Amino acid sequence: MTKESPTACVLVIGNEILTGRTADANLPFLGARFMAMGIQLREARILPDTRDAIIRTVRDVSQNFDYVITTGGIGPTHDDITAECVAAAFGVSLHEDPDARRRLENYYGAANVTPARLRMARVPQGARLIDNPVSGAPGFQMGNVFVLAGVPKIMQAMFDGLGDRLKGGRPIKSRAITCQIPESILAEGLRAIAEKYTDLDFGSYPYFRPQALEAGGRVGEGRATLAALGVSLVIRGLAEERMTEAAAELRALIESLGGTPTDGEA
Amino acid sequence: MTKESPTACVLVIGNEILTGRTADANLPFLGARFMAMGIQLREARILPDTRDAIIRTVRDVSQNFDYVITTGGIGPTHDDITAECVAAAFGVSLHEDPDARRRLENYYGAANVTPARLRMARVPQGARLIDNPVSGAPGFQMGNVFVLAGVPKIMQAMFDGLGDRLKGGRPIKSRAITCQIPESILAEGLRAIAEKYTDLDFGSYPYFRPQALEAGGRVGEGRATLAALGVSLVIRGLAEERMTEAAAELRALIESLGGTPTDGEA
Repeated sequence: MTKESPTACVLVIGNEILTGRTADANLPFLGARFMAMGIQLREARILPDTRDAIIRTVRDVSQNFDYVITTGGIGPTHDDITAECVAAAFGVSLHEDPDARRRLENYYGAANVTPARLRMARVPQGARLIDNPVSGAPGFQMGNVFVLAGVPKIMQAMFDGLGDRLKGGRPIKSRAITCQIPESILAEGLRAIAEKYTDLDFGSYPYFRPQALEAGGRVGEGRATLAALGVSLVIRGLAEERMTEAAAELRALIESLGGTPTDGEA
Repeated sequence: MTKESPTACVLVIGNEILTGRTADANLPFLGARFMAMGIQLREARILPDTRDAIIRTVRDVSQNFDYVITTGGIGPTHDDITAECVAAAFGVSLHEDPDARRRLENYYGAANVTPARLRMARVPQGARLIDNPVSGAPGFQMGNVFVLAGVPKIMQAMFDGLGDRLKGGRPIKSRAITCQIPESILAEGLRAIAEKYTDLDFGSYPYFRPQALEAGGRVGEGRATLAALGVSLVIRGLAEERMTEAAAELRALIESLGGTPTDGEA
């Protein structure tokens, strides 16, 4: 699976994520989209609004992954520095793009394109614009780096408009089987199956009783301080037949340990 | 602010985050804790359950940040490889720690410490254990790398038990002022204030009307497709008096533009 699929890295840019003010909502969307497109999202990095960190990282990851998606830092304020950092990473200058300016004028009305808004028309030399059907100001593509907005609904609309600018592979499928057996009991059999199906990826994700989670508790106050309700075993891969075979083996494993396998959400 | 505070990097380890199956819930907690402790969280990376990626990254970031926190990959199954990767990154072997084994025996009962569970007693040579008051299996500290569980309630309990093993600085404070003026109108004045208070960090975060967000829409179907309701201006820094001064200037800026500043949640 890892050999034939293109790879991607996401850069989430913004102090608000690293200070705990804002929970990122873009990675789950992008992760799911990449799976469906047959692109392996191999890494994500959360970066502050700091020139050096962004420039260094864009340079690094654009050389090591087929695609880089950035989210955040393309608005009108002083802390929106993604465009200038991407230009610096590629060693080109930033310029005001006439087409980008036209889009802003269409969106806001020409009289309302203030100097601050005009900042959003600046892209690196050689960049190609990315449509923003929601709020006007375009993103851009520079080489294999795709610069999108940080606001989830805007980012999503930009991403979904990229069309064939991102070339995927065979869709990466996943399926889940859940059961009520502790994962440590399943672990040995699961490892054997994972070692047999090396073309597939197997994940084991326990889930817990919410009340117990809320209550917390300490060892010695009783065993059930964080009672695992069960485990979700997830198979990911390209070959459906292989996944069906592996799923059958997982079901047999669960039954051999006295459990009841249930199809779950992957 | 950036000079006197220790720095940190968080590594979130797990395929489930990169495939979009699971939204990370640990960064918002850690980001807020680091602020309160006076530690700058300067970067976070989301990594797959892949040896090479984890080893290379641990090596890299442990040299470039004062503290590294990892979450995830310390359970009993085949895809839990954080401990062996941290050992490899530090060039030491993995061994079964007698104290860790005792903790597992105390938690599960000696008869229930299966080989799979015993995997959770393996730590790099020279590591120091980290208490897990919720589910027994300890984390560990290797050099400046702190290896914690991925399940949020377990991770949080482990982190909060670290005590003075993480040395912070002066708490990093934040305060927010909200108003209903578009951020592009505020941008020029905001930049001037940010350039005056270089010891502080200023963020500008617009927020939107949820219905409009849900509805989506395209340019040309009307302007209010993603109606910004207002903007939250966030000041972060160490010096309260300076923040109070800067906040007064922000309020004056907002009023000069016809807006009404309101204290918001930072």
